[in-house]
Amino acid sequence: MIEYYDVSGCYVLRPWSYAIWEGIQAWFDSGIKKLGVKNCYFPMFVSNAALEREKTHIADFAPEVAWVTRAGSSEMAEPIAIRPTSETVMYPSYKKWVQSHRDLPIKLNQWCNVVRWEFKHPTPFLRTREFLWQEGHTAFATPEEAVREVFQILDLYAGVYTDLLAIPIVKGRKSEKEKFAGGDFTTTVEAYVPCNGRGIQGATSHHLGQNFSKMFDISFEDPNTGGKAYAWQNSWGLSTRTIGAMVMIHADDSGLVLPPRVAAIQVAIILPVGITAQTTEEQRKHLMDSADELAKILVDADVRAEADLRDNYSPGWKFNHWELKGVPIRIERADLVNEIKRLLEVIHEEMYNKTHTFCLFRVLTARDAHMKVCYDFEEFKQLLDEKFILLSPFCGEIACEDEIKKASTRDDAEAGAAQMGAKTLCIPLEQPKETLPEKCLFPACKNKAKFFALFGRSY
Amino acid sequence: MIEYYDVSGCYVLRPWSYAIWEGIQAWFDSGIKKLGVKNCYFPMFVSNAALEREKTHIADFAPEVAWVTRAGSSEMAEPIAIRPTSETVMYPSYKKWVQSHRDLPIKLNQWCNVVRWEFKHPTPFLRTREFLWQEGHTAFATPEEAVREVFQILDLYAGVYTDLLAIPIVKGRKSEKEKFAGGDFTTTVEAYVPCNGRGIQGATSHHLGQNFSKMFDISFEDPNTGGKAYAWQNSWGLSTRTIGAMVMIHADDSGLVLPPRVAAIQVAIILPVGITAQTTEEQRKHLMDSADELAKILVDADVRAEADLRDNYSPGWKFNHWELKGVPIRIERADLVNEIKRLLEVIHEEMYNKTHTFCLFRVLTARDAHMKVCYDFEEFKQLLDEKFILLSPFCGEIACEDEIKKASTRDDAEAGAAQMGAKTLCIPLEQPKETLPEKCLFPACKNKAKFFALFGRSY
Repeated sequence: MIEYYDVSGCYVLRPWSYAIWEGIQAWFDSGIKKLGVKNCYFPMFVSNAALEREKTHIADFAPEVAWVTRAGSSEMAEPIAIRPTSETVMYPSYKKWVQSHRDLPIKLNQWCNVVRWEFKHPTPFLRTREFLWQEGHTAFATPEEAVREVFQILDLYAGVYTDLLAIPIVKGRKSEKEKFAGGDFTTTVEAYVPCNGRGIQGATSHHLGQNFSKMFDISFEDPNTGGKAYAWQNSWGLSTRTIGAMVMIHADDSGLVLPPRVAAIQVAIILPVGITAQTTEEQRKHLMDSADELAKILVDADVRAEADLRDNYSPGWKFNHWELKGVPIRIERADLVNEIKRLLEVIHEEMYNKTHTFCLFRVLTARDAHMKVCYDFEEFKQLLDEKFILLSPFCGEIACEDEIKKASTRDDAEAGAAQMGAKTLCIPLEQPKETLPEKCLFPACKNKAKFFALFGRSY
Repeated sequence: MIEYYDVSGCYVLRPWSYAIWEGIQAWFDSGIKKLGVKNCYFPMFVSNAALEREKTHIADFAPEVAWVTRAGSSEMAEPIAIRPTSETVMYPSYKKWVQSHRDLPIKLNQWCNVVRWEFKHPTPFLRTREFLWQEGHTAFATPEEAVREVFQILDLYAGVYTDLLAIPIVKGRKSEKEKFAGGDFTTTVEAYVPCNGRGIQGATSHHLGQNFSKMFDISFEDPNTGGKAYAWQNSWGLSTRTIGAMVMIHADDSGLVLPPRVAAIQVAIILPVGITAQTTEEQRKHLMDSADELAKILVDADVRAEADLRDNYSPGWKFNHWELKGVPIRIERADLVNEIKRLLEVIHEEMYNKTHTFCLFRVLTARDAHMKVCYDFEEFKQLLDEKFILLSPFCGEIACEDEIKKASTRDDAEAGAAQMGAKTLCIPLEQPKETLPEKCLFPACKNKAKFFALFGRSY
């Protein structure tokens, strides 16, 4: 999947992982194009002046911005930043392009790299200093249109996880503490990682309100009032972190397990089976040819198949090799192409259902559910250690979320990073059927509970 | 096509130009995948140690390398370069992956951004400090396989120009002076820009020989001799400069002209035509609906069509607008879908043929040919000023090419950048039928002519 690299926090995405990204790109790109979004490309460099325009936003990103200060052997007059995200790169152009309400909506997306120079320990896919993503940036004349799009995109993100990667998710809204800096509200798809009980953010779709349009003066004459009106904006992103989520959630004792719809190779045909010292050259050739033929038939039927004809490895080694690489189907001989196609669908369903049990409300009673509704903070802390994610009544205040995190952090040195405090993953769009109690989860909190929030240890 | 940007040398690729890049990507990506090339992604950052490994190579790129020296508010212990190209990024991994001849060939490609911090005056698409490209990097056990691939890729590059962009090219080899730093030889596709008589490099496919594999120790045990053998490598790239070539070559007095196969919109249906103050609301609605209907029929037949139903612009303004944007077909009313499809093909052929006359040997006699065979240096200089590119006998030596450039530079201050000296564009693969004279073009040169080279002013 990856290769290590001599710049700390950077990794090589080898074809085996990049092919998954290409699968996600093709699916999502076609989805947003149907919504009328167009692709474009903005520069990776940001001037300091543009970067600092929105104060809340830059405060959040400043500690991680990489700065170019030298070109060849010349010091630059002004250091130039590398984009950590492109709001401040793109919106000066949006200002130029919007004169009248007829210039709206603007719906642009770019597939690009971004840099966030984190100082925490790097992890392949999940925390890397450079990563790939798409970032959509849209601007509308009315808040209704903008908000509608936030949720259309969220549905596409949900589809990437459920329909392509066979990963169940919870759709929700981020708390005030966890939302995007400078935006009005953030929606998210959150997944659950069974091996360590943590939540993982899948992708986020932000409604920026008019915060950025006011800072960057993206405005037009209101056709009704004749006064000055500011655009309503969204931004939304999905990154290669998605591949990391997929790896963690689906890996088993035999290594990687690839969901069939994004696997670069869906079927590995392994030969020679039954080739021994007694096999004649003619028999050998016949076996090789028929494996090759089968691969061709499958490829013609739009199944990504490869025949492994290498004669310097044993069949056992080869089966093991393709299993470690996560190829969904490993076979010796042709049966029916249709059977294989059906099987790939069944594998997707099974992978989805296997991880599905933990996260839908209707299965909360199931023995293996990993999510619980919890009203009591002592029980909450104990269940966190048992790798649960928890639905609890919450007031929504940043100060209270800080207290919950602090109080749920285990300070025993041995526990390590896995025992970090709980944060909100999201406020699920679909709230549980249970009656919301008056009291917020945190014992000392004086505020009323506003909703059930999903809490967990997260990445 | 582009928007200007507040970091010098950087431009925004708007959807209208980015769609052309997407068309090129789809076509070329499918071509290389058929050759067994796989996509991947390597980091954009390069350590100084890796960058400096191949001396000729770094000498060429060092003056234009951008350096990151600060992250957040911390100075970095070691400055880190941004890739100007990825040989030195990728080949340390290739060393790890190649142990045996069975690990070869390696055939990887990436679509990414690169940075060359040029200090010359920037030009959109043609000279930008950040640009997008694909870079292919392949390694083989034998030189024959590598050299074969160099030309397979060159043919694909030729196809991008002739089959997609309707631009005729000359395929050739770069001179020693103009070849890629650190490689064995460079092949190129060169186009001609009628408006200023310059040549423009279209894309290059390099055979690196064993230079890099020796520097990076990409080696294996030779199965025949048991000794240590080094891989034979290629690299090849095509960038967004391609779009700049297309714009310059096809633009006419009415603005941009888009080749139909890459045009984001192939057909603009313009309404209302015939709508006057007397038109009833019902008639108006009928006209709008039928334009919309036609757009749908065309889209269903895989024609990229859009109906322009805006009622705040006159039909005349709209015709002019779509013509300036270069949309190949602008119509008021439906005729036949098939007729439109045929017309798009005819337009491609016509655009190709129009620029074709200058560059194929068989049309050298044509009145409007812009390429001549020239043996005399005085005539050579004069023809350069008349916007010709020239096929002349050449010894191939770097010192001689330097002299030709110097002697053909016009030093009158008024002439400006357009009167730069001539350089070799390439040594055409298909040499002219004329007998090669003994004498090199440059009068003072003592060497024998080795081949006809294509000379011109270039970008």
